[in-house]
Amino acid sequence: MEKIIKFSNAATHFYFDSSIKQLSKIADKKSLVIITDENIFKAHTAKFKGCNVIALKPGEAYKVQATVDEVIDTLIKMEADRKTVLVGVGGGVITDLTGYIASVYMRGLRFGFVPTSILALVDASIGGKNGIDVDRYKNLVGVIRQPSFILHDISLLQSLPQSEWENGFAEIIKHACIKDAAMFRQLQKESITSYQEDSRKLSDLIRRNALIKTRVVQKDEFEKGERRLLNLGHTLGHALEKEYELMHGQAVAIGTTYACHISEKITGFAQTEDVVALLEQYHLPTYASFNKQKVFNSLKMDKKREQKEMNFVLLDKIGKGVVKAIPMKQLEKIISRL
Amino acid sequence: MEKIIKFSNAATHFYFDSSIKQLSKIADKKSLVIITDENIFKAHTAKFKGCNVIALKPGEAYKVQATVDEVIDTLIKMEADRKTVLVGVGGGVITDLTGYIASVYMRGLRFGFVPTSILALVDASIGGKNGIDVDRYKNLVGVIRQPSFILHDISLLQSLPQSEWENGFAEIIKHACIKDAAMFRQLQKESITSYQEDSRKLSDLIRRNALIKTRVVQKDEFEKGERRLLNLGHTLGHALEKEYELMHGQAVAIGTTYACHISEKITGFAQTEDVVALLEQYHLPTYASFNKQKVFNSLKMDKKREQKEMNFVLLDKIGKGVVKAIPMKQLEKIISRL
Ligand SMILES: NC(=O)c1ccc[n+]([C@@H]2O[C@H](COP(=O)([O-])OP(=O)(O)OC[C@H]3O[C@@H](n4cnc5c(N)ncnc54)[C@H](O)[C@@H]3O)[C@@H](O)[C@H]2O)c1
Ligand SMILES: NC(=O)c1ccc[n+]([C@@H]2O[C@H](COP(=O)([O-])OP(=O)(O)OC[C@H]3O[C@@H](n4cnc5c(N)ncnc54)[C@H](O)[C@@H]3O)[C@@H](O)[C@H]2O)c1
Ligand SMILES: [Zn+2]
Ligand SMILES: [Zn+2]
Repeated sequence: MEKIIKFSNAATHFYFDSSIKQLSKIADKKSLVIITDENIFKAHTAKFKGCNVIALKPGEAYKVQATVDEVIDTLIKMEADRKTVLVGVGGGVITDLTGYIASVYMRGLRFGFVPTSILALVDASIGGKNGIDVDRYKNLVGVIRQPSFILHDISLLQSLPQSEWENGFAEIIKHACIKDAAMFRQLQKESITSYQEDSRKLSDLIRRNALIKTRVVQKDEFEKGERRLLNLGHTLGHALEKEYELMHGQAVAIGTTYACHISEKITGFAQTEDVVALLEQYHLPTYASFNKQKVFNSLKMDKKREQKEMNFVLLDKIGKGVVKAIPMKQLEKIISRL
Repeated sequence: MEKIIKFSNAATHFYFDSSIKQLSKIADKKSLVIITDENIFKAHTAKFKGCNVIALKPGEAYKVQATVDEVIDTLIKMEADRKTVLVGVGGGVITDLTGYIASVYMRGLRFGFVPTSILALVDASIGGKNGIDVDRYKNLVGVIRQPSFILHDISLLQSLPQSEWENGFAEIIKHACIKDAAMFRQLQKESITSYQEDSRKLSDLIRRNALIKTRVVQKDEFEKGERRLLNLGHTLGHALEKEYELMHGQAVAIGTTYACHISEKITGFAQTEDVVALLEQYHLPTYASFNKQKVFNSLKMDKKREQKEMNFVLLDKIGKGVVKAIPMKQLEKIISRL
């Protein structure tokens, strides 16, 4: 299935339910340069036959300028020019890197993504944010630029480690909470295993989530309002991620749990138990004991802080997220009593 | 004098005939971070009093990623955030670097320029191209993003070395050749010294040139047609710059001279002598003996080459540039016979 989504300056062409083989129809194979990581390349070597491939070391630790420098040197050696199309085949690390490199090499090449992790399929590949980390600052450097295309090849997920499935489902549950009560009920009836065993069901779920994120971003490409909803569970989540060794999805799940409790106090939200049960059903952590003062301090340092109050994503009910400005004093009190 | 120029995504506010002191009216001094080079900082230290300043080592050799990394580290230490406004106070090296850093730090800060060389005033600061060199590839990495403002403070030119004045006048003569016969005649009546001695005359000339470049870029922000006119003298000029030790303006002057001769053959241009005389009047080189085969080979490797022919900027008459596709074979023949 194809779909063309228009952003302010550009259109992204979606190829849902497709196959990486179709890349040769999108652009001349000679002009394509694929950027991927070694895990994905090793698991699917045959699928890359006849392609120009740059396979990077995997992991967030390589989402840095040194990798960008290395790829640019390789592009020069390959004689990549303005007609080259870069394709990021990988998780969010690869799509963030590829989008960034394509945005700056020769002041901008065409680029597209084949996301290979659940998280990249439903989240990282969409919205045009790209970039790299600098020291301990995540995504400090980057630009906003939409990919020309996003192609889904669900068969690549066969090699995705189980922990990465869980990681990705944290974002899917987030989408259900802020925007889609019907999907929340569907998720209640299923499990990671049932999706893994039914590729039709899985690809429908992924498309639905990709479109949720797309719609939110479209309404608010430069992050002034609506897009903030996507931060449900993330404000506290990021603070937790910084202070404790957690995967992103785990931190988001815990953050979502606490956001539900804060919502109870502020919006009168009354479905915390359902959210917690769903997170647990998808093997995600919910309640965790943490040093509340430490996490609150880290929160205060968050990029998103405003002087005396903080914009926090809460739930009105399942399927309806809202952004509320909470005075820092009140927030500190609520967190300390959770 | 103020003027607001709209580009596709952004508006650039021009402050002509202004003073660097006015910066504090454009943005809160605390939120400004000035990027400049040591030559300019040393010559005008008092003017930077009370400002956050990053003074870089001068020269093209520092227009590289290592400098970008260094500035980003400094910005982090200064706790620069989305409200920070970067101001490049310098020649084209500084404006290119500042525009690039501002475009990628936190996915884009507001930025403006105070160009301090003739070349930056009439050319480099305008049009939104920014970036850095990679190895021997000039401007290989960068983005296109318009500055929020450009402020002219002619008094800063007092410290500009004489050779840099000549360098900048090569671009002014280029503008006259492609777009403005009246300015060509005015230039014939003046000299670098007469402009240096009359700041009114000088600032009028600079504004006029800044507006010529602005109009060309506005018509063609993403370089599909009109903007190519700005490459008069540059195709050959770049090839000469690569093979011989020349300043950019010198290479452009020689390139313009030869472009005139090529125009004679193709458009019937008949004013080569006038152009050559004007270049010489402004202390620029015109005829130079060079290895034609070597320069032609370097030309073939130019980014702007198309398969079998090359877009070359020629003159119909003084004040009217045109872009013509010349078959490579014919071009080689013409150059070998020049
Ligand atoms: N740009 C955005 O809007 C946005 C949004 C959310 C997250 N992100 C970024 O995404 C990144 C996280 O994404 P991620 O979790 O996909 O990270 P990732 O790219 O590091 O992938 C996670 C792990 O799974 C492996 N992997 C991925 N797909 C595989 C497959 N099909 N088979 C085998 N192994 C596979 C990778 O090699 C890696 O080890 C972070 O850097 C985050 O900042 C960006
Ligand atoms: N972005 C564009 O569209 C564009 C267009 C043309 C050129 N450029 C770039 O501009 C650069 C060349 O510009 P440039 O010639 O201004 O280079 P520059 O910045 O290196 O300045 C030239 C020299 O003059 C010195 N200088 C500048 N202003 C001074 C002043 N007021 N007093 C004392 N010294 C001063 C500098 O320190 C330097 O030594 C190149 O990197 C080129 O790629 C960019
Ligand atoms: Zn997330
Ligand atoms: Zn030039």
